[in-house]
Amino acid sequence: MSALPRHGGGLAAACRLFGGQPRDWLDLSTGINPQPAEFAWPPGDIWQRLPDADLTASARAAAALHYGVPDDHAQPLPVPGTQAAIQMLPRLLAGGRRMVIAAPTYNEYPRVFRASGWQVDEQSADDALEADADAIVVVNPNNPDGRLLPRADILAAADRLAVRGGTLIVDEAFADTDPIESVAGDAGSRDNLIVLRSFGKFFGLAGLRLGFVIAHEARLSTIEAMMGPWPVSGPALAIAADLMADRVKVASVREAIRARHRETRNVLDRAGLPIIGDGGLFLLVQHPAASEIYAHLCRQHVLVRAFDYRADWLRFGLTKDASEAERLADALSKLPAIPKS
Amino acid sequence: MSALPRHGGGLAAACRLFGGQPRDWLDLSTGINPQPAEFAWPPGDIWQRLPDADLTASARAAAALHYGVPDDHAQPLPVPGTQAAIQMLPRLLAGGRRMVIAAPTYNEYPRVFRASGWQVDEQSADDALEADADAIVVVNPNNPDGRLLPRADILAAADRLAVRGGTLIVDEAFADTDPIESVAGDAGSRDNLIVLRSFGKFFGLAGLRLGFVIAHEARLSTIEAMMGPWPVSGPALAIAADLMADRVKVASVREAIRARHRETRNVLDRAGLPIIGDGGLFLLVQHPAASEIYAHLCRQHVLVRAFDYRADWLRFGLTKDASEAERLADALSKLPAIPKS
Repeated sequence: MSALPRHGGGLAAACRLFGGQPRDWLDLSTGINPQPAEFAWPPGDIWQRLPDADLTASARAAAALHYGVPDDHAQPLPVPGTQAAIQMLPRLLAGGRRMVIAAPTYNEYPRVFRASGWQVDEQSADDALEADADAIVVVNPNNPDGRLLPRADILAAADRLAVRGGTLIVDEAFADTDPIESVAGDAGSRDNLIVLRSFGKFFGLAGLRLGFVIAHEARLSTIEAMMGPWPVSGPALAIAADLMADRVKVASVREAIRARHRETRNVLDRAGLPIIGDGGLFLLVQHPAASEIYAHLCRQHVLVRAFDYRADWLRFGLTKDASEAERLADALSKLPAIPKS
Repeated sequence: MSALPRHGGGLAAACRLFGGQPRDWLDLSTGINPQPAEFAWPPGDIWQRLPDADLTASARAAAALHYGVPDDHAQPLPVPGTQAAIQMLPRLLAGGRRMVIAAPTYNEYPRVFRASGWQVDEQSADDALEADADAIVVVNPNNPDGRLLPRADILAAADRLAVRGGTLIVDEAFADTDPIESVAGDAGSRDNLIVLRSFGKFFGLAGLRLGFVIAHEARLSTIEAMMGPWPVSGPALAIAADLMADRVKVASVREAIRARHRETRNVLDRAGLPIIGDGGLFLLVQHPAASEIYAHLCRQHVLVRAFDYRADWLRFGLTKDASEAERLADALSKLPAIPKS
């Protein structure tokens, strides 16, 4: 298992280890909507020209609507994937030395902060929110366990941290399926709250590399200066402007995800796999034979997500359609170690 | 003129000042091939998935072929636009304090290095290549004057600089139309030479945001770590892999550019505008009435590039077709201040 990449998106590596071509595999290793939103093919000049200020403005206005950012706050700032924003955080918070993160979670935060010389402490979510640190990171809902912190607790933590000069970073990469506890509408009026949103996961277009940062205007200006001009591709901005401004389309994306979520969950339930976490776009299974299940699935060219730090966890992304759900059910049914329900 | 953006790509701002919709304007303010290369529409999974290692590998192999990087050198590293690479240079060369740049040139280098606290000296190309500095930047061929330094001089400068522990950065954003003096094939075997290449300018797809860094393997690994995973969009990588591996397609792109170059140059010649610089994808005009010509063209909704630092210069991008060439000729013919040839 250690030869596999830490991340999702490592289908090529899995092919090298277990054979087959990428198109032959059922890749459930990521938390990306498998039913991508339909979008209008961006017109030719979007591909040819440098992204214009008007194009960026349209994407930002659409994102403000989609994320529920009030009119008097700065509009969300597009970045080439939330990963790009994560890479910038240590420099953005220059002068800080200690980061506390609600763990376990997305492993890029500890990696990036440590690489910049920060001390990183991984704590439970409750402890993290009470911590005295230069930066606190919470992923909400959390990946991979789906733990959801109440908005009121997050805002209270931001207020406490403000007194000490610390910054709270809330990664809402998986908030779009049910944004009930989102603080996207609060970040613009506080100077120590930064929210990261992912475009590609919910809309099923992770290849585009697009995310948004929501924060106080001054903070966004600093990030803009750090990125320089034209950080995001024109097609990504055009597709975001198209999709995020359209409430009907967003509702239909949400409904499609819910349908795939129901069917995938049913497959795991019927296979007798105990689901202990639910992030809307992924399901977390805890099982003592997780490593064996993982290898068994790989041999049948089904890729899920395993974890270095929890050998009994497996994360399943959503199946794309009934046929994929059936394939997953079939692969699981052939595993002798799994008790049938 | 000062209200206009410093960069190309500012058509929206021009519309606000001089009226009209972007589609009504003839935008010659950038040095981007106006005849974009035809490419295959990337398949669905390229949009949906995070860019896989295999996709990146295909793009890198194609770039190595296109840029003439030898097999035993590290393959070019894709970045989300050369601008993204420029933004990283001061951190990549951390510890340095003084940068010398062959001026006048693309203004993002001085801006980015100064913003990071470096001392930046702008010198003539000959002086810059002889300078004692932590970093020397040359754009070759140069933007906006088309000045082309011989490869031998660049390599000699890199060797001299190596003794002092300095790094030579060669921006070859406009080298693709005639790569005769390119040092792309030399950078992988030297640890103090970094070459930046632009994908979008030559292929006419600047909206994609794609560039490549060519350097010693260790340097590229550092840049990769600074960017984190998935910095470039899947469609950009797929289109690059498709176009750059195809010598016939590249030759036809080059031929199309030459045809547009000839016709655009003829228009300027016939209008009596003295061309003092030629970068393959742009032509530099020097004229005492440049400011008036610029304003006159704007009023006719033709946008070219003016320069803060040289009021007598105007840079013209290439016209897309005979009809655009005719429109430019017509706009210029109505200018009383210009002597007819």
